[in-house]
Formats: sequence, C-alpha cells, structure tokens
Amino acid sequence: MLTLYYAKGTAALAAHIVLEEAKADYKAQLIDFSKMEQQSPEYLATNPKGRVPTLKTPQGLLTETPAILAYIAQTHPNVNLAPKDPFEFATAQAFNIYLAATVHVAHAHKMRGHRWSDDPDAHKSMTAKVTGNMAECARMIEVHYFKGPWVLGNTYSICDPYLFTVSQWMTADGVNLDEFPIIKEHSEAMKKRAAVQRVMELHE
Amino acid sequence: MLTLYYAKGTAALAAHIVLEEAKADYKAQLIDFSKMEQQSPEYLATNPKGRVPTLKTPQGLLTETPAILAYIAQTHPNVNLAPKDPFEFATAQAFNIYLAATVHVAHAHKMRGHRWSDDPDAHKSMTAKVTGNMAECARMIEVHYFKGPWVLGNTYSICDPYLFTVSQWMTADGVNLDEFPIIKEHSEAMKKRAAVQRVMELHE
Repeated sequence: MLTLYYAKGTAALAAHIVLEEAKADYKAQLIDFSKMEQQSPEYLATNPKGRVPTLKTPQGLLTETPAILAYIAQTHPNVNLAPKDPFEFATAQAFNIYLAATVHVAHAHKMRGHRWSDDPDAHKSMTAKVTGNMAECARMIEVHYFKGPWVLGNTYSICDPYLFTVSQWMTADGVNLDEFPIIKEHSEAMKKRAAVQRVMELHE
Repeated sequence: MLTLYYAKGTAALAAHIVLEEAKADYKAQLIDFSKMEQQSPEYLATNPKGRVPTLKTPQGLLTETPAILAYIAQTHPNVNLAPKDPFEFATAQAFNIYLAATVHVAHAHKMRGHRWSDDPDAHKSMTAKVTGNMAECARMIEVHYFKGPWVLGNTYSICDPYLFTVSQWMTADGVNLDEFPIIKEHSEAMKKRAAVQRVMELHE
C-alpha cells in the first residue's frame, strides 16, 4: 500500500494521476495548505521540506516529483508508463526535471518570492515576470520537447500527467494557451482520460 | 563515444566526474561562457536552453544533470554508480533532483537574478539571501539526506559527484563549511579520488 500526501493546486496532481493510471494500491492523504498543515510537526516528520508530494512506500518515504513518478512506473512495469531503455528513460526524466527545476521554479516566483528575497518590492517584480517566463517555457516545450500526440511520442508516459499539471499553472499564471495549441490540445486530451477525471475534483 | 559539453564552475563537473568514474569512452568539449559560446547558433542547436551540461550520445542529446548522471550509470552497470532497486534508485534521484531544483536554483539567484526579475534592486536583494539559503540547503542535506560515508551510505554513487559540485558553490556563496562538517569531510574525500583529480583542473 502506498500513501500519497497531496495538496490542491500543487505538483502532487501529477503523482495522483500516475497512481491512477498504474492502478496502484494507494490512498491519498490531503495536506491542507490553507491551514499550514505542511508545516505541522507530524508532516515535517514525513517531509522535512514541508512540501508535497510525498509518497510513503513499504520501503520508506520518497519526495521530488520526477523521482516519485519514475518509482510508480518502475514498480508497475506492466502499465508501461516509463521507457526501459536507458536513453529513452533519461529523455523522459530530462523532460520531467525541466518541469521541476525550470518551469515549476518559474511558476513559484509568483507566490513564493519570499524564498529568494526578503524585499516586498522584489516580490512584485518577480510576479510581474512570471507570465513571460511561463510562456517561454511553453514555447520551449512545444518546439523542443513535445513529440506528439503525447510528450514522448506515441506512448503515453509519466511525462504527460506532469505536463498537464504544469499547463494548468500556465493558464493560472496568465499564459494564453491559444498561443500554444500543442499544449492546449494535450491538456484537452488529458481531461478525457478516466484516470484524470477520477482525481481532478480532489485537486480543484 | 559520448561527448560532454561543459563549462567551468557549472554543474557539468558532476557529469564529468561520473564519466571518469564509469571509465566511459567520451570526450569533453569546453563551452566558453566568458565568450558567451552557450548562446552561439551552433551550441543552441545542441541545447536550445543554452546551458550545460549536454551529453551527446549515439542515440541523441541529453540535458538536465540528474537525467545525464543516471544515463551514464545505467549504461555502465558494471561500475555500480546507481542503485537498481526502484526505491533505492528513486532515493538517489530524489537527492539529485533536490540539488537541481532547490540547491542549484538557490545558488543561481546570486548571479542569474535577471531570469526572474527585471529590477536591479531585486537582484541585489536576491544576492543578499543566497548565503543563508545555501546554508539552509547544507543543513537539510546533512540532517535529512546524507547517510555516510557517501550520500547513499556505504556505496559511492552518482549522488556524490553532484554533492561535491554543489558544495563548491556553497563555499563560493559564503557558506562556512566548518559549520557543516559532514559536507566538508565528504568534499575532502572526493578530492582524494583519482577520477576527481583527473578532471578538476579543467573546471578551475
């Protein structure tokens, strides 16, 4: 049995969808950010970074979305959610790490500027740059990464729920997805999947 | 034959050390940041993000340090640089992704504030917070991640060259490693390895 610790509007959506796609034996535990539950002593014992997702497994705790998604795929190999060839696997990981280390970070500068500056005016200037940065990320994804119809090509993978999660932030950050028709179409295709429909209402 | 595109003072050091540890058949190609070679049309065709490292493989190009390190390990399995069990592998990846998405990002706010704000005063306030943030990362690594004597415990892995790379940034960012004896000792142990000694002078 796996336990996913998640919060609404976060990257945990990606792990939640992948658990559903993998038909994993899991439960989902909400961490209520509006009550600052991510900073409670109980949760900090689970994830000292005070972030979500965290995945509790029979072997121990895992953090960091790209690592969690790969773990779910590799422990449910029949569902074929991650490539097995080392180069193809690295290609999938490189995409997900780009989302984690560049796109998620760009998004975080809207609301989490206090992580990197103590100056409220600096926070405003960071927020002002978020739409442009997220649009640049969208362009990079469309031009450089996306093979179609899914991120890696014909095979649906752990990259798709993560892109879907991030594309929702793009919209919330003021990016007009009509300018990024590949991402927009991908997002629509994701919304039609049963696994996505089963978890979405928990995240809205 | 692999080709590593690298620049001095960057995360490419980690991939360079891992290539040496794996006894890989590779060459290293310097991208001179002082001449802005990372923005040349030739290099942008290799990595449209204009960053290093990039690894050219017989199957194609790879970016993002945690993905590159895992690829080198998985294509040189006899050297045993990455765990094979999915949970242990995810633990290694989670550490490396923490370095990429949190520690590297904290470091980047010293010199690359223009990525997230157009305001020079904001850049100053970001720079002012870098030493504290890098120290907080060092504490998280020592308390939460590091098992000893290597990152994952008794077995040296792809996590160690990456931590070594990041620990050099910590020093450059004003963190006193005397306050973080685990990381300091790890760094000294790394400097004694032949693989590290073979590549260090190319990165200084």
